Amino acid sequence: MKKLEDLQVIISEAVDKIGFPQYPAELYEPISYILSLGGKRMRPALLLMACDLFGGDIDAAIPPALAIEVFHNFTLMHDDIMDNAPLRRGRTTVHEKWNQNVGILSGDVMLIEGYKLMMQVEDRLLRPILDIFNNTAVGVCEGQQVDMEFEVRNDVKIDEYLNMIRLKTAVVLGGALKIGALIGGADIKDADLLSNFGEYLGIAFQLQDDILDVYGDPEKFGKQVGGDIISNKKTYLLIKALELAKDKQAADLSHWIALKQFDQAEKVEAVTAIYNQLEIRNYAEEAMQIYTDKAFEALDAINLPEEHKQYLHDFADGLLVREN
Amino acid sequence: MKKLEDLQVIISEAVDKIGFPQYPAELYEPISYILSLGGKRMRPALLLMACDLFGGDIDAAIPPALAIEVFHNFTLMHDDIMDNAPLRRGRTTVHEKWNQNVGILSGDVMLIEGYKLMMQVEDRLLRPILDIFNNTAVGVCEGQQVDMEFEVRNDVKIDEYLNMIRLKTAVVLGGALKIGALIGGADIKDADLLSNFGEYLGIAFQLQDDILDVYGDPEKFGKQVGGDIISNKKTYLLIKALELAKDKQAADLSHWIALKQFDQAEKVEAVTAIYNQLEIRNYAEEAMQIYTDKAFEALDAINLPEEHKQYLHDFADGLLVREN
Repeated sequence: MKKLEDLQVIISEAVDKIGFPQYPAELYEPISYILSLGGKRMRPALLLMACDLFGGDIDAAIPPALAIEVFHNFTLMHDDIMDNAPLRRGRTTVHEKWNQNVGILSGDVMLIEGYKLMMQVEDRLLRPILDIFNNTAVGVCEGQQVDMEFEVRNDVKIDEYLNMIRLKTAVVLGGALKIGALIGGADIKDADLLSNFGEYLGIAFQLQDDILDVYGDPEKFGKQVGGDIISNKKTYLLIKALELAKDKQAADLSHWIALKQFDQAEKVEAVTAIYNQLEIRNYAEEAMQIYTDKAFEALDAINLPEEHKQYLHDFADGLLVREN
Repeated sequence: MKKLEDLQVIISEAVDKIGFPQYPAELYEPISYILSLGGKRMRPALLLMACDLFGGDIDAAIPPALAIEVFHNFTLMHDDIMDNAPLRRGRTTVHEKWNQNVGILSGDVMLIEGYKLMMQVEDRLLRPILDIFNNTAVGVCEGQQVDMEFEVRNDVKIDEYLNMIRLKTAVVLGGALKIGALIGGADIKDADLLSNFGEYLGIAFQLQDDILDVYGDPEKFGKQVGGDIISNKKTYLLIKALELAKDKQAADLSHWIALKQFDQAEKVEAVTAIYNQLEIRNYAEEAMQIYTDKAFEALDAINLPEEHKQYLHDFADGLLVREN
């Protein structure tokens, strides 16, 4: 089994070598630019890992892995326009560096380039792999749409939230693993189980992210603690708190959400205090545990040698105990 | 051979029957909306026609034909955002009726839905047809990018212009015909020839459109005569005039292009007068004739019964002598 870090390096080098046409420059330069901004290349590395797990040839999985990375960056390019984001990984976003039309159109062509890369598989896998890719891509779009709708709603339910993060974040992990597994020679049953493992793990990971935003060690977490609270982001924690808060707590929470001008530290402290009173962290950790358990349950059922399953187990542990 | 009008009706009915998910509504409603705005359904009808020409089963060609129509409407949805267009076929554009983010994201999912429909072909055709679709889709994006760049350039060359209209308008006609031909049972050589026929015809048709905008009978043409002149659109006529005009003519032309405030009728009259002095219409008609000849040359070489070729010949004649 290759180490995940080694797979990430393989992907990074392959990303640098993707050749796009020179003309028209404003269509293709933004693609090279956003891909050059880096990132952990986690999704494509997982695709290679899945191929490797089932004893497949990693080289054969590189183009589809690149497809997943190109697709992911297409969603970032369009999401940045929709979110009006000035920065991506500390660098100017495409629509700011060029303009919005360039961001829309380069993104469009990236999605097509993703399909072209994904088609570089053997004929017998072409249809099943494209079916997975289609479902993944549609899921991500649906997730982004639902996420945008959540911004203007205060009645989001926990189930809706879990479905949104599944679509927006988790299906692409499941899809990448499933495609890699099929290339590696897995049968459809094992590929589905591995996909479930990835999807559940993705949900658990997002729930952990929600928890760490409030309760993480800022030095290890690498983000501003309370960022979600400051921006009223509908996380598991806020949705659960809105569901449970009564009387004065409910009034206080609504007050902080409605407030346009506030001291950030004060808001974070006040909302965290409400979370603490309602024991929101426990609920969130329980939910996270449920999805972690589901992930490991799927993993256990896969027909793979124990040491390969242990590899995935260790990977999941590393991901989920990033720190807290 | 089925009549083109009958094929258009078949497509219109099939478009009405495409079922998209209900949730999230803001993602899928705009797709049904833009598809409901109508249009001539020419591209998908041509795909069916190509299938019919080679004796294929039209029913098998309907999903790919719908894919072409969904793809075309995806490009319209995104182009309308880029062009800041308030109306499409006399109705509010998607980004105006909902908002820009909805237009971007619904367009993205339409492109994916296009792939899903295009994949509804038999296995042996899946890869060749998707290759054609990819090339078509990339071409349209490249054409749109180049067209946007032309808006801010005054040094566009005729060859660049012909390449732009090929990419933006003609490749999708060629692609639709080629896909239909393959489904109909054509060999790759005949499919390529039919594709060339469509591409050359598309270029000739666009050149005719440029000519009719200035010299067409407004009642028959159905658009405001001189619209391109008023908006300084880089058509074959304007580019050729900029190339040929010398001294006072060149100065006059530049003057009218630079003018921000003007009487529309006066500008149309003045620029048309320059076109007339330079005999621009002759040049444009010659170019149109060259591409028409190329189209018929490709048609002649196709291995089809004479009456089927005559059908295509009549179709082309109908398209190109719309009126002038």
